[in-house]
Amino acid sequence: MSSVRPLAEIRTEIDQIDAEILQLINRRALCAEEVAKTKIAEGEQGTFYRPDREALVLRRIKELNQGPLPDHTAMRFFRELMSACLALEKPLEVAFLGPEGTFSQQAVFKHFGSSVNTLPVAAIGDVFNAVELGKCHFGVVPVENSTEGVINHTLDRFLTSPLKICGEVEIRVHQNLMGHAESLAGITEIFSHQQSLAQCRKWLDTHLPQVKITAVSSNAEAARMASLNKQTAAIAGLAAAEVYQLPVLETNIEDQANNTTRFIVIGKQDSSPTGKDKTSLVFSTGNQPGALYRALESFAKFGIGMVNIESRPSRQGLWEYVFFIDIDGHSEDPQVAEALDLLKANVNMLKLLGSYPKAVL
Amino acid sequence: MSSVRPLAEIRTEIDQIDAEILQLINRRALCAEEVAKTKIAEGEQGTFYRPDREALVLRRIKELNQGPLPDHTAMRFFRELMSACLALEKPLEVAFLGPEGTFSQQAVFKHFGSSVNTLPVAAIGDVFNAVELGKCHFGVVPVENSTEGVINHTLDRFLTSPLKICGEVEIRVHQNLMGHAESLAGITEIFSHQQSLAQCRKWLDTHLPQVKITAVSSNAEAARMASLNKQTAAIAGLAAAEVYQLPVLETNIEDQANNTTRFIVIGKQDSSPTGKDKTSLVFSTGNQPGALYRALESFAKFGIGMVNIESRPSRQGLWEYVFFIDIDGHSEDPQVAEALDLLKANVNMLKLLGSYPKAVL
Repeated sequence: MSSVRPLAEIRTEIDQIDAEILQLINRRALCAEEVAKTKIAEGEQGTFYRPDREALVLRRIKELNQGPLPDHTAMRFFRELMSACLALEKPLEVAFLGPEGTFSQQAVFKHFGSSVNTLPVAAIGDVFNAVELGKCHFGVVPVENSTEGVINHTLDRFLTSPLKICGEVEIRVHQNLMGHAESLAGITEIFSHQQSLAQCRKWLDTHLPQVKITAVSSNAEAARMASLNKQTAAIAGLAAAEVYQLPVLETNIEDQANNTTRFIVIGKQDSSPTGKDKTSLVFSTGNQPGALYRALESFAKFGIGMVNIESRPSRQGLWEYVFFIDIDGHSEDPQVAEALDLLKANVNMLKLLGSYPKAVL
Repeated sequence: MSSVRPLAEIRTEIDQIDAEILQLINRRALCAEEVAKTKIAEGEQGTFYRPDREALVLRRIKELNQGPLPDHTAMRFFRELMSACLALEKPLEVAFLGPEGTFSQQAVFKHFGSSVNTLPVAAIGDVFNAVELGKCHFGVVPVENSTEGVINHTLDRFLTSPLKICGEVEIRVHQNLMGHAESLAGITEIFSHQQSLAQCRKWLDTHLPQVKITAVSSNAEAARMASLNKQTAAIAGLAAAEVYQLPVLETNIEDQANNTTRFIVIGKQDSSPTGKDKTSLVFSTGNQPGALYRALESFAKFGIGMVNIESRPSRQGLWEYVFFIDIDGHSEDPQVAEALDLLKANVNMLKLLGSYPKAVL
């Protein structure tokens, strides 16, 4: 067996490394202060936080990292460091769909690091209001959430809001079985929202094939019902278990390990191209047959990938349907700019919601 | 006005600093791997995580730190860095009183950093069980929580558990006003648990002096009741607002800015002295008059500060009352050791629950 260094010696080395790291992170903070001064001298007060610059820093860390720390860990470290440096100048205020402890707040910290002030508000519209009125620098709102359907609120609000999308965040979402039964064998009925039930179908087929499944209006309602009868259980988030004091019987029972909710960051500023960007837009085609097909041709012609499409009935009375689309690339990329020009000629209404770096962490 | 360096130049310097930091944190991780190898060679597999060593590292960072990053921020980085280094060897498994998103989980991350696996369990007793059975390396349980009174569960369980206290964590706790009223003026009645009401008395006197105050069995019940009538509101945690979809009217309305919950870390290993430690113990005096006074004399005689005392009716049948005490210092400190020897002679039963570093962050 190879010889090992004594503990005391290794710890002395660690202490030296720590002192160096400490000096460097403070030197970095001084540089960040200098950046702020330069920006003020150049009349750029409003743009201390640059999502594009931060995305580039994190991607560079990923490229440079040789381990043993995993890329993800190294990037998280720098995410926090940038957050702390920024907070020295002016802590960012970020509004989110409250309460605290929700996935939305988790998304705020994942994107901005933990050195920000968060403002929980009661509804998605209030997140937009807080940023529009200048109460907060940024807002974070869910845009795709298979269990709660909040996507529509967010999309609809964009039709009338002057705000831009300046970033995206993805958060893993878990489903859990909760109830007062002593064991799975003691359960005769399970309540949940139908979309949560769908997400756990395989698990239910495997572990509780004989049990009656009842869809109810929400996961919180499911938890309430399960709290009334020991032989029933609910599939819901863990906050519901806390409020109804329901023991959690199984955690993470969703079938897809990549069951995620996507959030977007909204603000007033544009984000510069980083080389790996997305652009979100909304347009209306009118009702001629083939109109959507022709609109999408603009992207195909310039070889631009489409990540997402969502159609929504318009509430503006001017168009019957609007389409929300995410495409690959930044609106300043030449190919994208040309495709957007072509698209504009083929639609009744086109609104760019923003170009922003793809989620890094 | 002084001249400023161009943005590009500062950013180049930041990029260089980042590359150096990245190298150093990976060098630190390599050292941590070496520590693990040494420990294995010395037959110390079970003790990868040393709360005493970590407390010393963090205190040293605080001493060395010259800013501009605040001490708290610098320590949090090193907290995360140690957590990440440890996870390379073997991610710690930590049980806590679930569900996820609670103050208990926040306490886990504050103490262990975020590179740990957390296991939410349904009751305080289950946290003890998980650690006793070796399912988890450590557990985190609340020990002083003015609103929920969970302290008793934790203390009682210590009477029969072989586990030791190896750390403490403090978390700020907030109270919030929630309800469907359009404004404060629309509220005629407020529900909450009486202890939460007491915590917000000044705020209530100032902002809602005319409103009827009704104490109910729990804050969750208060939220449920408030959800039924638009003219009523509840004081509760934000998780309750989420489940009952109650708009949050005011956040952080507690009178004391330092309204905290204290958690302790339980495990199987002892923690070495760090110079700033606490020792927790439980003893029984029998029922002679003046018995407690004589017991406490042991500490007074050796000049040892008492941080906390809590009396509990014993459920063991052997003693009528037991006393839980926290004192300043480590049981291996000479003065403390002598005081404990003296105490032992004056009581019927004495059990050391552990000596551990005082909360650092």
